[in-house]
Amino acid sequence: MITILWAVPGLTQEALPSWNDTAPRKAIVAFVERVTTHGSPNFVPEAERIATFDNDGTLWAEQPIYFQLAFALDRVKVLAPQHPEWKDKDPFASLLKGDVKGALAGGEAAIFEIVTVTHSGMTTEEFENIANDWITTAKHPVTGRLYSEMVYQPMLELLAYLRSNGFKTFIVSGGGIDFMRVFAERVYGIPPEQVVGSSGKLDFELRDGKPVLMKLPTFNFNDDKAGKPVGIQMHIGRRPIAAFGNSDGDLQMLEWARGGGGVRFALIVHHTDAEREWAYDRTSSIGRLDKALDAAQAEGWTVVDMKNDWKTVFPFGSK
Amino acid sequence: MITILWAVPGLTQEALPSWNDTAPRKAIVAFVERVTTHGSPNFVPEAERIATFDNDGTLWAEQPIYFQLAFALDRVKVLAPQHPEWKDKDPFASLLKGDVKGALAGGEAAIFEIVTVTHSGMTTEEFENIANDWITTAKHPVTGRLYSEMVYQPMLELLAYLRSNGFKTFIVSGGGIDFMRVFAERVYGIPPEQVVGSSGKLDFELRDGKPVLMKLPTFNFNDDKAGKPVGIQMHIGRRPIAAFGNSDGDLQMLEWARGGGGVRFALIVHHTDAEREWAYDRTSSIGRLDKALDAAQAEGWTVVDMKNDWKTVFPFGSK
Repeated sequence: MITILWAVPGLTQEALPSWNDTAPRKAIVAFVERVTTHGSPNFVPEAERIATFDNDGTLWAEQPIYFQLAFALDRVKVLAPQHPEWKDKDPFASLLKGDVKGALAGGEAAIFEIVTVTHSGMTTEEFENIANDWITTAKHPVTGRLYSEMVYQPMLELLAYLRSNGFKTFIVSGGGIDFMRVFAERVYGIPPEQVVGSSGKLDFELRDGKPVLMKLPTFNFNDDKAGKPVGIQMHIGRRPIAAFGNSDGDLQMLEWARGGGGVRFALIVHHTDAEREWAYDRTSSIGRLDKALDAAQAEGWTVVDMKNDWKTVFPFGSK
Repeated sequence: MITILWAVPGLTQEALPSWNDTAPRKAIVAFVERVTTHGSPNFVPEAERIATFDNDGTLWAEQPIYFQLAFALDRVKVLAPQHPEWKDKDPFASLLKGDVKGALAGGEAAIFEIVTVTHSGMTTEEFENIANDWITTAKHPVTGRLYSEMVYQPMLELLAYLRSNGFKTFIVSGGGIDFMRVFAERVYGIPPEQVVGSSGKLDFELRDGKPVLMKLPTFNFNDDKAGKPVGIQMHIGRRPIAAFGNSDGDLQMLEWARGGGGVRFALIVHHTDAEREWAYDRTSSIGRLDKALDAAQAEGWTVVDMKNDWKTVFPFGSK
C-alpha cells in the first residue's frame, strides 16, 4: 500500500510542503499510511489516533527565553506600582532595574515566584483577557514579530496533515495550561480541551453572586518530564500512538508513546539552524536536548535536523 | 425559526423518542434549535457547544449503592486472601462477613479506605482490565442486569441528539475517572478524553524496562460539588453551555454552566419513579437532591420528573 501511494507523487507531495523530502518526512508519511490503511495489520481506528505535541521548541520557538516567561516578566512591570515591596526584593528588584539575567539568577525558584505572582489572584476569565492582550500585541525581541507568529510552519503543516488523516492532536507541554489555551485554537487549530499543561489550583467562588474560578497562588501540577505521561493519562486516558518533542522534558512522553503495542511514532525536533532559527542542544539551559537525543539514537526515533529537513522555519521565513 | 421547525413534526418527533412530549423535551429541543440556528442571535459555533453530564443518577442508576462502590466491594472479596489483616479491621471485617451496612457505617472515611485499596497498587492498564472484567460480568442485585445496562435510554438519546447537533458531550462526575473510561465509550459514545472524574495520583515508572503508570494510594482530585467547575476548567478549558445532573453534587456545575453569557441550559433528573426505577431526593444518602432542587425551582432550570417525562427508563424497560 505504501508503494502504491509513493507511486502517486501528487498525493504525498501535497502534504507537508515545507518539509524537504528527507528521512523525517518520509518516516512521517510512511507511519501515517501504515496506521490509516484499512485492512493493514497496523491499522489503527480513528478514535485511537492520538498525537501529542510539546509546545515550546516543538510548535513554537523558545529563545532567547520561554515566551510565557517573557509574558510574566512584562506582567511584573505592569503590576509593579501595586507592589512597592518589590523594589527591594529579588527577583523583582533586579527585573524592575532591567536586569533580567540577575532576576533569573535565582533559577527555578525565582521563575516560580515570578510565574506565581503573575498567574494568580484573578479569575480564569480575567487571566484569559490579560494573556490575550499580551499575545496579540507583544513583540519578540529578536524578530520583532508577534510571539504567535514564531511558530514552525512545518509543524503547522504536520498538525493539519495528521488531523486530515483522522488524528486528534493534543498539546502536552510544561507550559501553563491556561496560557496556551488563549492562542492554541487560533494558531494551531487545537481546542482548549486538547491542551494539557502545568497548572495552579483553582477555587470556585461566588463573587457578587456570580460564579467565578479564582486562580490561586498554589501549585497544582507540573506537566513536564515524568509528569507528561501522567498528564496524558489524566486528560486523554489513552496512550498516544505518536508523540513529538524537542527536549529532555519530552523524553518520558516519547517513551510512553513508543511503549505501547503496535506501530508507534516518536519524533524530536533538533535545533540545528543558527541562521534561520537557533542552534542549541546538550548544554542549553532552555530546551536542553541531551538524554532524549541519546534515546532517539538508541531507539531509532525520528530526529528532525531543522537546518536540513525544513525548507521554511517560520510562516514569515527566518529569524 | 423555532416555530418553523415545530411545524415540521417529522424533524422533531424523531429525536428523543423515549421522552414524552412534556416540558423537558420541549425545552431541550427549543434550546438546541436556538443555539444551532445560523443567523440567530443565540447561535453558538460548534467548537463552543460543550455539554457536561454527571454520571451516577444522571446517565446510569445509582441505587441501591453507587455502582463503583459495588465494584470496590467485590474487589475487597477477591483481594481478601492477600490481606489476612482485613479479618480484624473494619470496614473490611464487616464487609467480609457479608455486613455491607456495617462496613459502610464508617461513612465517607470507610468508603475512601475501600476505594483506595481497590483502586491503587496496580498499573493503569491492569486496573482497566480488572474494571473491564467486572463491568462485563457483574450483575445488578435488583434487576440481575449488567451494570452497564442500567443506563437511562432517554439520556442515551439525549447524548446522541446533542452530538448530532454539533455538541461535544463530556462526563463530569464524582466517580473515578479511570473506572468510567472503561465503559464510557462503548456505552455512552463518550471517548476517554471526554471523561472528567475523581482521581488518585499516578507515578510514571519503568518496570522491567517498560514504561508504566502506577496508581498510587494517594488522593489527587475530588470532582464533586465545587470540584466540578474546577474539573471542567482543568480538562475542557471552556464553560459548558449545557449541563445535566441529578443531585446536590451537581449544583455548582449547573451554576457554572448557567453563569456564562448567552443562552444556557441546565437540567436535573428527578428520581420520582419508584416502580420503574427508584424514588428519592431530599433525604437520600445516595444522590441527595435538596439544594439543587431548590436552585432549579428558583432559577428556572429544567427538572425531569422521571415518572411523567420518560416513556422508557432503561433500554430493557423497567426495574
